Amino acid sequence: MPNICYIVGTAGSGKTMLTSSLQRYLITRGASITTINLDPAVQHVPYQADIDIREFINFEQLVDEYQLGPNGAMIAAADLIADYIHEIQEQITDLGESSEVVLIDTPGQIELFAYRTASLKIIQSFPADTSTLAFLFDSALVSNISGFLSINLLATSVQIRLNLPMIHVLTKSDLIKAHQIETILSWREDPYVAIEELHGMNREFSFGIGQIVETLSDIPILPISSLTGDGMELLAAHLSRTFTAGDDWSI
Amino acid sequence: MPNICYIVGTAGSGKTMLTSSLQRYLITRGASITTINLDPAVQHVPYQADIDIREFINFEQLVDEYQLGPNGAMIAAADLIADYIHEIQEQITDLGESSEVVLIDTPGQIELFAYRTASLKIIQSFPADTSTLAFLFDSALVSNISGFLSINLLATSVQIRLNLPMIHVLTKSDLIKAHQIETILSWREDPYVAIEELHGMNREFSFGIGQIVETLSDIPILPISSLTGDGMELLAAHLSRTFTAGDDWSI
Repeated sequence: MPNICYIVGTAGSGKTMLTSSLQRYLITRGASITTINLDPAVQHVPYQADIDIREFINFEQLVDEYQLGPNGAMIAAADLIADYIHEIQEQITDLGESSEVVLIDTPGQIELFAYRTASLKIIQSFPADTSTLAFLFDSALVSNISGFLSINLLATSVQIRLNLPMIHVLTKSDLIKAHQIETILSWREDPYVAIEELHGMNREFSFGIGQIVETLSDIPILPISSLTGDGMELLAAHLSRTFTAGDDWSI
Repeated sequence: MPNICYIVGTAGSGKTMLTSSLQRYLITRGASITTINLDPAVQHVPYQADIDIREFINFEQLVDEYQLGPNGAMIAAADLIADYIHEIQEQITDLGESSEVVLIDTPGQIELFAYRTASLKIIQSFPADTSTLAFLFDSALVSNISGFLSINLLATSVQIRLNLPMIHVLTKSDLIKAHQIETILSWREDPYVAIEELHGMNREFSFGIGQIVETLSDIPILPISSLTGDGMELLAAHLSRTFTAGDDWSI
């Protein structure tokens, strides 16, 4: 069965950029990669997509034909993916067999992937033990405590919904300072310190959040920059270990 | 200061429909309401908006002028709201003074409101003790356990980020059966029963989620149907109590 990595994250967190830079990094290291664009509404894809959902769903036509606004059209397009699941699944299986990993770039808005049913059907059509989510933490969003805790809960929400193992990636690491990255990583290790700095939260509520974020401490946060390439090696090694249960790929 | 209720929820959860039906309900009961559309990308608004963000931001022009795709344009439009905060704040204050409540219909995709900074600036420009979030639970999404727990965590994520009191509204109650509504309400009361039915979750993780959902048990989930009007009276009474600290409005 193919090894699948779904790249998920809030709008603007850098999913498409990471897909592109990770594809390039892995290919130059001799790995065989299948790359899939699952966003019907994206305009420009900066990587070579082996499967592109836009070949199945014409977003502009959807807007014109059904007189939908951009929001309605994006929901309709995300739901329409369900009609092509059989074809997509077959293509992923075919291409994925000869690839070390299948990278799937998901729709711009995370909720279209996480909370609508079509994506759940795609995920469930492949075994969970050869699939993983790479959840992106946007540096700009998580460098303050409430943003950090909030995105941890969002990640947990998505994980419960999609029921797959998850790794966390801190994107745009070039946009924040090294000490800010350190701080973010330290919050992951001891969330209660972070929570104490948030005022006005009731005790049980804080405790529940701390409990969840503490459980996430097994999941590393990997800082990367798609721009400079920093952290790409670590991310590749991590994916390799995930899919080979301990043995690195040859890359 | 004006009493403000922000209507938030995932794409398609019924924010605009609820804004419309709640406005109608309150007006027919003699209340004075200010209604605001804060979604720059919405095409059709089925209620009379006293303030409409589309008067400030022209979505189509943004698409044409900057050659943006629908996703990029929605992010840009959400961010652009920051440029008009002063005007919007003044208008809300003026109109809100003579209204029992200001209803604010938020952008289609919840993450554009919850995780970008412009909306945080609007929220912070009004006192937290006269503001509340009505977070919509889409019946279609929360009638299974993983969906229910997932949306509870999403709601918590949004609450931490926006730092306002919250009420939960179960929308489209006409689309599910009465016993399904009962089940959803019972999960809120005892989340651990629900969590036990979810297999494969590690103990600490489950405990953290249970702990959070248990804390939310103080927050009622109000089932409503914007179509039939069911539950509207209860929601109105709840808002009234929220803003008058115990005394009902005259409505």
